[in-house]
Amino acid sequence: MAEFARRTDTRYGNRPTMKDVAARAGVGLKTVSRVVNGEPGVTPDTERRVQEAIEALGFRRNDSARVLRKGRTASIGLVLEDLADPFYGPLSRAVEEVARAHGALLINGSSAEDPDREQELVLALCARRVDGLIVIPAGHDHRYLEPEIKAGVATVFVDRPAGRIDADVVLSDSFGGARDGVAHLIAHGHRRIGFIGDQPRIHTAVERLRGYRAAMEDAGLPVDERWVSLGSTDPARVTAATEEMLSGPEPVTALFAGNNRVTVTAVRLLAGRETPVALVGFDDIELADLLGITVIAQDAAALGRTAAERLFRRLDGVSEAPARVQLTTELLARGSGEVPPPGV
Amino acid sequence: MAEFARRTDTRYGNRPTMKDVAARAGVGLKTVSRVVNGEPGVTPDTERRVQEAIEALGFRRNDSARVLRKGRTASIGLVLEDLADPFYGPLSRAVEEVARAHGALLINGSSAEDPDREQELVLALCARRVDGLIVIPAGHDHRYLEPEIKAGVATVFVDRPAGRIDADVVLSDSFGGARDGVAHLIAHGHRRIGFIGDQPRIHTAVERLRGYRAAMEDAGLPVDERWVSLGSTDPARVTAATEEMLSGPEPVTALFAGNNRVTVTAVRLLAGRETPVALVGFDDIELADLLGITVIAQDAAALGRTAAERLFRRLDGVSEAPARVQLTTELLARGSGEVPPPGV
Repeated sequence: MAEFARRTDTRYGNRPTMKDVAARAGVGLKTVSRVVNGEPGVTPDTERRVQEAIEALGFRRNDSARVLRKGRTASIGLVLEDLADPFYGPLSRAVEEVARAHGALLINGSSAEDPDREQELVLALCARRVDGLIVIPAGHDHRYLEPEIKAGVATVFVDRPAGRIDADVVLSDSFGGARDGVAHLIAHGHRRIGFIGDQPRIHTAVERLRGYRAAMEDAGLPVDERWVSLGSTDPARVTAATEEMLSGPEPVTALFAGNNRVTVTAVRLLAGRETPVALVGFDDIELADLLGITVIAQDAAALGRTAAERLFRRLDGVSEAPARVQLTTELLARGSGEVPPPGV
Repeated sequence: MAEFARRTDTRYGNRPTMKDVAARAGVGLKTVSRVVNGEPGVTPDTERRVQEAIEALGFRRNDSARVLRKGRTASIGLVLEDLADPFYGPLSRAVEEVARAHGALLINGSSAEDPDREQELVLALCARRVDGLIVIPAGHDHRYLEPEIKAGVATVFVDRPAGRIDADVVLSDSFGGARDGVAHLIAHGHRRIGFIGDQPRIHTAVERLRGYRAAMEDAGLPVDERWVSLGSTDPARVTAATEEMLSGPEPVTALFAGNNRVTVTAVRLLAGRETPVALVGFDDIELADLLGITVIAQDAAALGRTAAERLFRRLDGVSEAPARVQLTTELLARGSGEVPPPGV
């Protein structure tokens, strides 16, 4: 990213940059960024020095500079996986709010889980000169983005990491969350637990399955591979997989649903059954509280906000190594995950 | 729109247009459009004549022409009200699917119900040379769009009509849907029915209130103005308004919720009460079937699809007067709307 920072200096011409402020105050760029963005971790004395340098140089946050530079509104692109998935609603809104606070326009579109479509959309956004990109990747090879990143397009990945390039990523702890959820079912007496997840090429699906296996192993429980099903979240596929696990002489007594789409179908299916089956789902769902659905909640708005803030720090010229930011999940016990196995 | 059609001809240069096809086949533009888009309403004989003209002229759907024309992907802008409102998920996805079928990129953003922000976003999208716009308007004066429309940016409004300009609009029958929902409550014995809606400057809120009043009047029932509350859909506001109506010596025995945001709050509030209160909500909600919530469902995906198809017809050079397309709603009786008043 050093290349990007250098280029930024050129683009801003004679306007004082954060680098100038940092040099004058005798602090690092990150410290200036913290002061400018009102973030913690700066001593009062350092903050005063930075403020003095800002005033002396007439420095202004360069989101407005960015607008002025090209005589147009700055913009960032957001590439989602599915516009209709409610998980992306709060995430998108959070990104838009941060963009707006920086005077930037948000442009978004979806890849429909198709790596080619993701690449096509990302490059179309770059051709439209977005200043930065937030990507929920469908593919596993993002080397196509290297020329764009070198050309100064800041990029942050969300929900899933980038493939084959070194880039910022903000994600929820899918592994830890799933492990907690499955451990919760085990703690309520379950031994035969099914896992129904999204397609195996999706990072979060694999991580959550890893969490399931870890919880089972932690409890010394064997995993029958008939209890594990990854695939499309299409209701028919999920229904068939669930019914399969719930049939036979030794059916599962509990289910872990790998994401909100799976949970919705599982809830519908279980609602029609006489024998109760325990259920914990990954992702919170609207009205899940009233239906008593126990979930591992991730904070979609925090994911979007964190990614967008990181992106704008990059756009503000802060040069730091790409990092992986992981947000914790929360288990919300509401009833469905606390149902004991039959006969207990 | 004649001006736009003329300009389109120029822009496409020597490529045969739908107008050329229509002239050669001796049919109207709309008929050509129907054949090209595989829509019904064309006799086999006419279809054959149109196909012959298409082949003779070497006509190709000009969505590809549009891509080639400027050496870039065509794009359309979608301006929503709130990215996080689940109502817009299926609508956005439907628009994106139609755009994609036409080889176009979808760019979207939200106005957050702020007319200034709507205008800012629309003009920013126009500055980025979108070929067309689909707008869910926050404001009531769209004369600012006239120069853009004259310059060839096709525009279709969705969910709410444009203000002070003549433009295409695709909307659900808010008036009829609300009237049906309130008549349903009356048919189940209710006489004191509350209406809780969105802010009075929003077209759909006013139309749904009009539907409520019409149903009450049809049944010869007086409306106590304390039973009507329009305002923000913020849960605190909705909760206060609902509690007010449910208190006092003559509380309402049923509620009509003006949209999905109001319904969610009302369901939460009513779940905690001992005396059941009947509820019908406008808009379907995920898992509402399992919670037994009776709703007036509108088809958000059909709204988006219809608007996008109309937009691409315009972009294909079909010149016709702006129209208002209204989609019907459907009452889904699931329990909450069939609760009788106390003592019946």
